[in-house]
Amino acid sequence: MTIDFQTDPSKYRHWRVEYDGERADLIMDVDEKGGLFEGYELKLNSYDLGVDIELYDAIQRLRFEHPEVKVVVLRSGKDKVFCAGANIRMLAGAAHAHKVNFCKFTNETRNSMEDASDHSGQKYLAAVTGACAGGGYELALATDHIILTDDGSSSVALPEVPLLAVLPGTGGLTRVTDKRKVRRDRADIFCSIEEGIKGPRAADWRLVDEVAPNTKFAEVVKERVAELAKRSDRPAGEEGVKLGPLAREFSDDGVTYSSVEVTLDREEGIATILIKGPEGEAPADLAAMKGEGDAFWPLRLARELDDAILHLRNNEREIGVIQFRSAGESEKLLSYDAFLEANASDWLVREIRLYWARCMKRVDLTSRSLVALVEPGSCFAGFLAEIVFACDRSFMALGAFEGDNRPEAALTLTAGNFGPYPMSNGLTRLATRFLGEPETLAEAEKHLGESLDAEAADELGLVTAAYDDIDWEDEVRIFLEERTSFSPDALTGMEANLRFAGPETMETKIFGRLTAWQNWIFQRPNAVGGEGALKRYGSGQKAAYDKERV
Amino acid sequence: MTIDFQTDPSKYRHWRVEYDGERADLIMDVDEKGGLFEGYELKLNSYDLGVDIELYDAIQRLRFEHPEVKVVVLRSGKDKVFCAGANIRMLAGAAHAHKVNFCKFTNETRNSMEDASDHSGQKYLAAVTGACAGGGYELALATDHIILTDDGSSSVALPEVPLLAVLPGTGGLTRVTDKRKVRRDRADIFCSIEEGIKGPRAADWRLVDEVAPNTKFAEVVKERVAELAKRSDRPAGEEGVKLGPLAREFSDDGVTYSSVEVTLDREEGIATILIKGPEGEAPADLAAMKGEGDAFWPLRLARELDDAILHLRNNEREIGVIQFRSAGESEKLLSYDAFLEANASDWLVREIRLYWARCMKRVDLTSRSLVALVEPGSCFAGFLAEIVFACDRSFMALGAFEGDNRPEAALTLTAGNFGPYPMSNGLTRLATRFLGEPETLAEAEKHLGESLDAEAADELGLVTAAYDDIDWEDEVRIFLEERTSFSPDALTGMEANLRFAGPETMETKIFGRLTAWQNWIFQRPNAVGGEGALKRYGSGQKAAYDKERV
Repeated sequence: MTIDFQTDPSKYRHWRVEYDGERADLIMDVDEKGGLFEGYELKLNSYDLGVDIELYDAIQRLRFEHPEVKVVVLRSGKDKVFCAGANIRMLAGAAHAHKVNFCKFTNETRNSMEDASDHSGQKYLAAVTGACAGGGYELALATDHIILTDDGSSSVALPEVPLLAVLPGTGGLTRVTDKRKVRRDRADIFCSIEEGIKGPRAADWRLVDEVAPNTKFAEVVKERVAELAKRSDRPAGEEGVKLGPLAREFSDDGVTYSSVEVTLDREEGIATILIKGPEGEAPADLAAMKGEGDAFWPLRLARELDDAILHLRNNEREIGVIQFRSAGESEKLLSYDAFLEANASDWLVREIRLYWARCMKRVDLTSRSLVALVEPGSCFAGFLAEIVFACDRSFMALGAFEGDNRPEAALTLTAGNFGPYPMSNGLTRLATRFLGEPETLAEAEKHLGESLDAEAADELGLVTAAYDDIDWEDEVRIFLEERTSFSPDALTGMEANLRFAGPETMETKIFGRLTAWQNWIFQRPNAVGGEGALKRYGSGQKAAYDKERV
Repeated sequence: MTIDFQTDPSKYRHWRVEYDGERADLIMDVDEKGGLFEGYELKLNSYDLGVDIELYDAIQRLRFEHPEVKVVVLRSGKDKVFCAGANIRMLAGAAHAHKVNFCKFTNETRNSMEDASDHSGQKYLAAVTGACAGGGYELALATDHIILTDDGSSSVALPEVPLLAVLPGTGGLTRVTDKRKVRRDRADIFCSIEEGIKGPRAADWRLVDEVAPNTKFAEVVKERVAELAKRSDRPAGEEGVKLGPLAREFSDDGVTYSSVEVTLDREEGIATILIKGPEGEAPADLAAMKGEGDAFWPLRLARELDDAILHLRNNEREIGVIQFRSAGESEKLLSYDAFLEANASDWLVREIRLYWARCMKRVDLTSRSLVALVEPGSCFAGFLAEIVFACDRSFMALGAFEGDNRPEAALTLTAGNFGPYPMSNGLTRLATRFLGEPETLAEAEKHLGESLDAEAADELGLVTAAYDDIDWEDEVRIFLEERTSFSPDALTGMEANLRFAGPETMETKIFGRLTAWQNWIFQRPNAVGGEGALKRYGSGQKAAYDKERV
């Protein structure tokens, strides 16, 4: 079954959004029968990847289609439960790789809520009524402010360890220690209590921001919405951009979008993502850009690339290498790059740049070997060159290629490579690349706007290697053959380590530390074996554990 | 088989040390027949845990017994090989838990070299002749300066991914990216080349600090030793302290040292470590302390506790909980704490404090549930109270216990809890504990030197809970029963995450990120399965990989 990451509100089965001026209510009301796979029911507002795909879509639309929304209230459409977290039967039945990819995507979606709050003036508030457990609490943790009703039963919980013998899989532990800064022994208790913590103690322990009596709950939420709205810089009097369906065509060996083309070589385990540069120059001004709506090239590209990466991650799991290519005119691309830079303070341009940053982070966090081929006729410049710097290796064509009348390969750096698209570690890709050579970073910045040929780019350390047309094909082939001959697991671990040098942030801690531990645990018999906790959950039988500590 | 972490130079089979004034040469010359287990030969200066136990011992002795040594030259006693890394047949045959514990210990040993250089004025230099691969290069990475001979064949390499389908297990990837700050695509190439990199390119890529012609190698090493020695503040005219054999007695259910007593309840999976406080007051002055030699209580305690933790980690793998208790007079302990603080600038006191810091880090990094019981008659004060703050939970006895005439439980904070014993994340345990409440940290510091009863300690947030004698036994029992009923794997992952909030350092990155990925890979069929790379290494058959990416 192919998992489709595209949806729109007309298709939602699990969420609805209610708009009221600067406030929107994002209401989780999961359809029990609406599971992505057979074999489980989504009881108690539990979720699977399908539910989260709708949430991701809703968050994107809130940002792009609703400039007027300053505060999003996340709440439940059910009576006695906020959200019971990821569906356990789904987890128990899912393949290891699906579980890992599911956790990654859900956490990326939580990150996008935090990103909206931090950079886009759209604040999130969790209005928690009923049980808020596991992934449900992790969802609340991604908001700016958690209000828990004090009704004697509503509670927050991370019951994964006692109940399921796994860890919270969507950043829960790290958000408890590093975002909410809960004292470690209290966090330890909290993570050991199946039924969770309710009432004033939840606030006292920093697990929620406040507890409100049930009778005054709606009123308190309203007050906090008003306060959060004051901290928002969302624009007044602007129109949103409607995100229409993607132009997308699947075939046996790939998928074609308007500006992205994915070609699969399943035999070799290689996908090629070709970025097709813009056909014209950037619009003359903001009004013209807004007139283009979702057809504006950088927005279109971000949506298509995002979808392509998600498709490859989840539906093409035996693809081990993604090679990025581009084709187009650098000058046109640079006109878009300059347009984005010049109009950075506009709300929509800001959204588009933030989306490109998230899209690039998604590339960084994709556990496939990434290689960029900077060829004649390519247009890696400015923000598009971030793809080159996201790759594990990059090869650049040196000089003219015989019989090839396209322009020689060139790379162009712009301000876009020195700030607006940071990695999860908080640094730009170039700053991470040159961690040991700040002088090289400074040198690179002196060449902004220059069309750098392969020799210059190599000299500046911007690419891994430059090859002329005699060596090009062989070198690329040798690399691909070598890469696809290695153990996919060892590559996943190696790439996860080498890509993120330097500082750690909550994001890198979650992906690099928590996820790795969870991956390990997701394979241990104590969790997934026949007598393990995930398998035995709900069976009435207790799990049997091998007591050995590792 | 019980693995013994105690040794001394008279028993070394794999290392020798040559002393020449301010220089010592630490020479690796592994005895092929000297493996810790049956079934493999330690060819090509490859190592197993036994080899590393000797190295750890040698490093400790260099610090304590040789104040005159300013520079340690790490070199090979073999002709054509520096060190081939961890023995692969040993790895292929070892249990998962042994592999993981082996990697942890070897990295702790590498950390202790870096600690000696950073804080103790004892610099390390790797003089690399011959092949320096895998764990061999990781050993070199732990030094301050790597010199590679340019003889046309000597090289450095991390061939784990292409050769064995696992990661370098002793911090190699992180030291390459974060210590040596190698550009990520070069690191990617380096980690993909079985035969490694030799000559000037190794220096150019920052993999080594310099390359020296073979004919001038000894001379260049000598020059660098002289330069490094100038950066050392090791003392002149001081005598070292001989580290004698530990007073230690094993029994069926534990091990007894002079100041540490370990009692095992294997049925319940619980070990109790009782710290017996000092019998007298601290010595009157430095001369008196030095007269005591290795019998000086804090040094004795650190050596014994260190050995006890290593013993439990490696030889008692089904023990899931370690409970720490203490018995003694707080006043006497505080006299030692004050002595250490007052004489912090003395080289030997500095060594002892640094050792306690490493010992506490070893506790932090022990993957067992840790609980401290602060009972009547206990002496958790100053540096010893760090044990309480290292635990996942701490319980303190409230008020007088019926029929118990020992003094009521008390905790005393000193300057020792606010600086000299940082965790791997660079913060003190209290600063980590109160990450979200800096005002509580400041408040705690106002109570330095006060004997805090359970109510006061609880109020200050220093313990998890305080119980009176009616509840004490039940509460402790309920916690222990709950803890030992959980999945050991889930607890390992949860504790690894909750213990290290806040900033990340190279140390926490290695233990929290790299190790977790390696643990995952160490379980994957692509590495350890019948057709996996570790199993097939040396068989002439290539490993067969499942191509799915996770």
